[in-house]
Amino acid sequence: MRLPHDPAPRGKDVVVIGAPYDGGTSYRPGARFGPQQIRCESGLIHGVGIDRGPGVFDLIEVVDAGDINLTPFNQHIAITTAQEHLSALLADNSAFLMLGGDHSLTLSALRAVHGRHGPVAVLHLDAHSDTNPAMIGGEFHHGTPFRHAIDEGLVQADAMVQLGIRGHNPKPDSLDYARGHGVRVVTADEFAELGVRGAADLIRERLGDRPVYVSVDIDVFDPAFAPGTGTPAPGGPTSREVLALLRTVGELNPVGFDVMEVSPLYDHAGITSVLATEVGAELLYQYARAHHPKNTEEEE
Amino acid sequence: MRLPHDPAPRGKDVVVIGAPYDGGTSYRPGARFGPQQIRCESGLIHGVGIDRGPGVFDLIEVVDAGDINLTPFNQHIAITTAQEHLSALLADNSAFLMLGGDHSLTLSALRAVHGRHGPVAVLHLDAHSDTNPAMIGGEFHHGTPFRHAIDEGLVQADAMVQLGIRGHNPKPDSLDYARGHGVRVVTADEFAELGVRGAADLIRERLGDRPVYVSVDIDVFDPAFAPGTGTPAPGGPTSREVLALLRTVGELNPVGFDVMEVSPLYDHAGITSVLATEVGAELLYQYARAHHPKNTEEEE
Amino acid sequence: MRLPHDPAPRGKDVVVIGAPYDGGTSYRPGARFGPQQIRCESGLIHGVGIDRGPGVFDLIEVVDAGDINLTPFNQHIAITTAQEHLSALLADNSAFLMLGGDHSLTLSALRAVHGRHGPVAVLHLDAHSDTNPAMIGGEFHHGTPFRHAIDEGLVQADAMVQLGIRGHNPKPDSLDYARGHGVRVVTADEFAELGVRGAADLIRERLGDRPVYVSVDIDVFDPAFAPGTGTPAPGGPTSREVLALLRTVGELNPVGFDVMEVSPLYDHAGITSVLATEVGAELLYQYARAHHPKNTEEEE
Amino acid sequence: MRLPHDPAPRGKDVVVIGAPYDGGTSYRPGARFGPQQIRCESGLIHGVGIDRGPGVFDLIEVVDAGDINLTPFNQHIAITTAQEHLSALLADNSAFLMLGGDHSLTLSALRAVHGRHGPVAVLHLDAHSDTNPAMIGGEFHHGTPFRHAIDEGLVQADAMVQLGIRGHNPKPDSLDYARGHGVRVVTADEFAELGVRGAADLIRERLGDRPVYVSVDIDVFDPAFAPGTGTPAPGGPTSREVLALLRTVGELNPVGFDVMEVSPLYDHAGITSVLATEVGAELLYQYARAHHPKNTEEEE
Amino acid sequence: MRLPHDPAPRGKDVVVIGAPYDGGTSYRPGARFGPQQIRCESGLIHGVGIDRGPGVFDLIEVVDAGDINLTPFNQHIAITTAQEHLSALLADNSAFLMLGGDHSLTLSALRAVHGRHGPVAVLHLDAHSDTNPAMIGGEFHHGTPFRHAIDEGLVQADAMVQLGIRGHNPKPDSLDYARGHGVRVVTADEFAELGVRGAADLIRERLGDRPVYVSVDIDVFDPAFAPGTGTPAPGGPTSREVLALLRTVGELNPVGFDVMEVSPLYDHAGITSVLATEVGAELLYQYARAHHPKNTEEEE
Amino acid sequence: MRLPHDPAPRGKDVVVIGAPYDGGTSYRPGARFGPQQIRCESGLIHGVGIDRGPGVFDLIEVVDAGDINLTPFNQHIAITTAQEHLSALLADNSAFLMLGGDHSLTLSALRAVHGRHGPVAVLHLDAHSDTNPAMIGGEFHHGTPFRHAIDEGLVQADAMVQLGIRGHNPKPDSLDYARGHGVRVVTADEFAELGVRGAADLIRERLGDRPVYVSVDIDVFDPAFAPGTGTPAPGGPTSREVLALLRTVGELNPVGFDVMEVSPLYDHAGITSVLATEVGAELLYQYARAHHPKNTEEEE
Repeated sequence: MRLPHDPAPRGKDVVVIGAPYDGGTSYRPGARFGPQQIRCESGLIHGVGIDRGPGVFDLIEVVDAGDINLTPFNQHIAITTAQEHLSALLADNSAFLMLGGDHSLTLSALRAVHGRHGPVAVLHLDAHSDTNPAMIGGEFHHGTPFRHAIDEGLVQADAMVQLGIRGHNPKPDSLDYARGHGVRVVTADEFAELGVRGAADLIRERLGDRPVYVSVDIDVFDPAFAPGTGTPAPGGPTSREVLALLRTVGELNPVGFDVMEVSPLYDHAGITSVLATEVGAELLYQYARAHHPKNTEEEE
Repeated sequence: MRLPHDPAPRGKDVVVIGAPYDGGTSYRPGARFGPQQIRCESGLIHGVGIDRGPGVFDLIEVVDAGDINLTPFNQHIAITTAQEHLSALLADNSAFLMLGGDHSLTLSALRAVHGRHGPVAVLHLDAHSDTNPAMIGGEFHHGTPFRHAIDEGLVQADAMVQLGIRGHNPKPDSLDYARGHGVRVVTADEFAELGVRGAADLIRERLGDRPVYVSVDIDVFDPAFAPGTGTPAPGGPTSREVLALLRTVGELNPVGFDVMEVSPLYDHAGITSVLATEVGAELLYQYARAHHPKNTEEEE
Repeated sequence: MRLPHDPAPRGKDVVVIGAPYDGGTSYRPGARFGPQQIRCESGLIHGVGIDRGPGVFDLIEVVDAGDINLTPFNQHIAITTAQEHLSALLADNSAFLMLGGDHSLTLSALRAVHGRHGPVAVLHLDAHSDTNPAMIGGEFHHGTPFRHAIDEGLVQADAMVQLGIRGHNPKPDSLDYARGHGVRVVTADEFAELGVRGAADLIRERLGDRPVYVSVDIDVFDPAFAPGTGTPAPGGPTSREVLALLRTVGELNPVGFDVMEVSPLYDHAGITSVLATEVGAELLYQYARAHHPKNTEEEE
Repeated sequence: MRLPHDPAPRGKDVVVIGAPYDGGTSYRPGARFGPQQIRCESGLIHGVGIDRGPGVFDLIEVVDAGDINLTPFNQHIAITTAQEHLSALLADNSAFLMLGGDHSLTLSALRAVHGRHGPVAVLHLDAHSDTNPAMIGGEFHHGTPFRHAIDEGLVQADAMVQLGIRGHNPKPDSLDYARGHGVRVVTADEFAELGVRGAADLIRERLGDRPVYVSVDIDVFDPAFAPGTGTPAPGGPTSREVLALLRTVGELNPVGFDVMEVSPLYDHAGITSVLATEVGAELLYQYARAHHPKNTEEEE
Repeated sequence: MRLPHDPAPRGKDVVVIGAPYDGGTSYRPGARFGPQQIRCESGLIHGVGIDRGPGVFDLIEVVDAGDINLTPFNQHIAITTAQEHLSALLADNSAFLMLGGDHSLTLSALRAVHGRHGPVAVLHLDAHSDTNPAMIGGEFHHGTPFRHAIDEGLVQADAMVQLGIRGHNPKPDSLDYARGHGVRVVTADEFAELGVRGAADLIRERLGDRPVYVSVDIDVFDPAFAPGTGTPAPGGPTSREVLALLRTVGELNPVGFDVMEVSPLYDHAGITSVLATEVGAELLYQYARAHHPKNTEEEE
Repeated sequence: MRLPHDPAPRGKDVVVIGAPYDGGTSYRPGARFGPQQIRCESGLIHGVGIDRGPGVFDLIEVVDAGDINLTPFNQHIAITTAQEHLSALLADNSAFLMLGGDHSLTLSALRAVHGRHGPVAVLHLDAHSDTNPAMIGGEFHHGTPFRHAIDEGLVQADAMVQLGIRGHNPKPDSLDYARGHGVRVVTADEFAELGVRGAADLIRERLGDRPVYVSVDIDVFDPAFAPGTGTPAPGGPTSREVLALLRTVGELNPVGFDVMEVSPLYDHAGITSVLATEVGAELLYQYARAHHPKNTEEEE
């Protein structure tokens, strides 16, 4: 992930782009420093995964386009700025991997992706459904992006899987909204029962070969594995389980990615940033696997 | 858990009560700040559990009665003060949830509960058996509460399960004492083998429908999940496993609760306090489930 | 582990020896303070393991010989100094347990052990294979010890198991080197599939009753369990899994041990040091089990 | 400062009120948790100042009215909500002490104070002048409150002293604006040259007996004394110097107070919160001194 | 301060002795780990002071006698155990330097010193007077040692100077008690006015050549310089000022020393422990200066 | 300091260059991450200094050339690599500002500067003289650079001032060496007596208009102001004093700069990195002042 820096990339396979913003955060702030810290820790990542033949950077072209310049003060402006920036990247490149930043910006990403691919399938790993209603003064807070996305027709809700969901939601709650629109919600406990292979099968069955956007809220991991985040939720899966699941993303048709909600202010040993880097690197490799199958076929 | 504050509650279902004290701590101090920190982090908890129908606060009446005023300097005075305070709460309300504070205060709790219910069954989640003998000058240190409780006849030792026990105890040790009095000790490894369902069955079989006091030492969790505690013990269960087990407490007849040994001084990202809040919220919901079954029946 | 201090031990079963050095560290430093911090946290350890009859210190004689005086500035001098010190210990005692310090010093240990036992089998728990080539100016960095050891004929490579390996290694990589020499590499994912018993069987089959050196890099644990280390690698096993595996070491013929790569600078709650202490204590007990089987037979 | 809690106070001398908000923060967030943390640390404060006769709480009536409920998402709403809340307090009580929260809310305070007292004098202790222009999407960011206040006629700019100012401002800068409106800017270096007594004289001369609002940005202290803040500026005064200066506030005619910009996320040992508590307690005492001179006359 | 270890020293000039205890702490605990952490950080200290001729360890014999074994649970037992241990040291050696541990143990020290020297003069550097009355259950809490010492006739109160006092004490307060017995109280502000030389003169005038016990509570320093302590008090002197004052102790007749109240739990960068080490090393040098004047005369 | 990035600058006034290396560190490591962290915190710096007319970046051309690629493993290679890199920069640009990294690299800088300017005067701000002899295996450790520089004839020792020196050095010590070669040593205490203006006069008198290299070890500040460093030394000057002194550097003839020994691992609130940024920014401004006097003349 010590990628070549290119603020105006053209013709790349995946552009890594930082989104330093936490203006949508309801509880613990700090995700505005997420991209910076992920880059600091990414010195640990030299390639992607053991026993995989060539490295990801031999398979696809990836650059780091730096950070989007986002106001911390106004959600409307931030959401729009991010969307325009991401749309511009997609005009000249195949895909992006956004490093957050709070989850509200996934709406920007989905708008940009929709502009290129139309309504997409979604694989959403998170402790929270993020299909809550807007609040007064907070139309685009970080609990809302997928509700907006469904309402705006950016995604195919019945080709959407949310995995890792847990926590506290008295009825009626945001899960009713998601399920009511056809989203398949896999709770953290259900993921534990299904196992990685069972979950991967369920996802592939649901999403098929539709273009799929993959959004990873770092709080999908139990707080032991990712303490550095704004709304930690105990009872989540381990890093081994989620990373194993991400290794199956290449069986899908991924067209865009994000890794969100890393708050370095709660990440004293940097393990959250290291984990986010690993997630990002894995997603890049899966993109290569999905779209350059010849080059990676020797893997299995 | 941003509960209504009521320093002199009457007629409530469960009273949350802080016990800011670590005068019984043998190793790392700091549990005196546990209640304060748990309250700070409880802003994350809005309800209890997904897919459960109405919220817990629609089912039962819960208030926060603040903290017991406890001297850090004298174990006898502290144990007695806490017991009197808790007894007074039980005179006017149905049950309490004590937030510790070190584990020695569970003796106070069991004395108070015994005063209302007679000898009770116990579900004790902990890395340590806490059935050690007193020490010179430390009659009520935090490794002794259940030995005192057995000796004083406060509990039905053969209706007592200790789960999560691990660590280092050359023979003869405190487990001999516990087992010698009929306590069923489930080690951390045995819990892993039994699984959540197996452990829940074992517990229900042992405790039946007796009134049961549930005591959770936060160090029952592996230190990865709960670093903020005084005597962390590696090799413990995950948050998912313990929380899943707690979700079966409503199948029993719970009459009192505590969550002990949270030391914020070792909890830099607050994940221990967040987890303790979750444990507390789950226990409240299980109380509702056990005692207001109609209201929660739509859950399963 | 508050062991009797003896800077010049003779006739002991196991000598605990600190190696405060991180001159071979490529990324995050701080392992130079590992031994100091492990000793600080070892107040938690009073014996070894529950349900095991007598304590380890009733079975074997163990002393703490303090720290080796190692320059932080020159790898050649440090490696040689450590080897001479360890060789001297082995001349007068049966075995040592080295507390690191970075992993490069395991080369010193293997040279010393080879001097007494000839080529030994190896059980190596680590996220990384540590069979990388030397670098200019860094002939003995912490990614190289097992390559040097194989090249120098210190170990029986076909009686060597590396377990917990994971992370990012584009081909061709250091695993090719290890496997090419007959090393059995068990990745973190394969360990999860095998389970503790399966892995223990595989190890015993491979190593038989050969003299075996056991080297534990604390980063074999997932960073959630051991954040305080220099090159944390997400996706690793839990403390329960690794500790359970270590409990089978007594079925082998262990002749030396190390616990390496603890960096207190990233260990704010001390859980890594506590875990390292537990690993060390378990290894001592397994040594007793292996070499004093009568005394421990009542265990199972 | 463990004050009686009264969410709807009437007839009090000073009402302490929390403003948990950092939606105006440009750099490091976290001031939203300032009031909570200041209350946690205030257990250290039992009275106010040595050698002063009776305690402050024997002289004036002070209560803690809890926190204003502020959206983190929208500056306009937050500023207005805070102002309405503070105006309501002033309708029923003599003065307030606001605990921030970021400095943008001082605009709310000055609007409320203006509503009761008309244009007031200001003593503003800060590393920054906070007379910057608004930004697109951030009309009320934390660098703007005194510019808005001057523009809105809430303050008498020529009876305004800013003390502690330092840092980096290429010309033309916000100081031009302040000075252009008659504000007396005392830089950190000038404060060092004047000494406490010289500065106090300058302030009294400038402000006379006009009603004065005292606003303390915790970053007026050098970061060594107050690391827990959003925009730390090296080269500031010591705690002794600023506290000594605050002890002269009772020579003025204070009508309102705030202590702003405490961010616990950067305050690992809590010394910033402890200092903020001390500042607040001192301001309360100075209010008593100014308005109840008989009771405190034995002091000198 | 990496001194030779000698658990049973005889004939030494000064014996360094740890007192790991915080059973007298009213607010923030952790001083029980003070001695351990001071020893960890003392690797920084190679000698004592620049431009001073020979090193202190060439002038006097100093050993480290390890820690006193103190129960955390019972103040009476702890105070007595410490006193007996210190008395035994004084029976065989000239003086001790106690590393705390909370300040209540200074009573033990004064009892031991009184046993050898009769009533002594005292130089007491602290933010707090520590002449408070006992509390129920806390007869020997850390705010009481000098009141007990005066009441027990261990010290010559009119040859006692307390320097650095500050903070919050509504009248009547503990200063009345101290002054009423003839103690000279130099507040932090008065120290700033006097300057180092003025304060040193005042002290020498007051104490003359009486045997003097020097007790340094680390909280005499402003919290910026010593955050790692239990009751930090803003507005204190700098490290330069206090260290300069300590350099005049050799003009007195010192017979014993302590450095108390270091709590590593609040000392994330270790600067408090480093400062405590410096204070201790300076006191050792001053002892040499006072009692071996020939050897150090070339200094000035 | 969010400077334009230019890895191969030509014709610039000052090139900022990172030196991520701590292979010369004797005690606390971590300076290898200094440049990275300083860049992270530099978002706080928008210009340089108040009341100064145009900003520094309007006066001189400054770019950030990124980091030198330095092995952590071999002092000889690192020192040589850094020197070659810096010499290459000086071939094409006027001056550099090196961000360390440990102080041993100042030898590289002085070699490079000597290659362009011949023997230079030196202003060296530090707690330590850094004129110690080499150690076995550590010829270029961080306590040696100025001894090597004097021995190699890179500097004019009699036009060298070391300021801030303090700490523990039994005689004979490194100060003898420095003074013996004509270096003027101003101890921390002497700096306090001289005051900023006195010290500045002393420096200007000594250095005159010779080309001067300015080296700032961040540990010149008291640890309260700069905890994030490897060998903190209590009793140092404040940030206000040192920054005020640096503001006089423009009266000299500066030709190169460094800011060394920032270790983020001990800098939890980032105040050391912020201070280092301020020091660097001030040095840039002073370069402009010295070499573009017309542009800055309106300042005074």
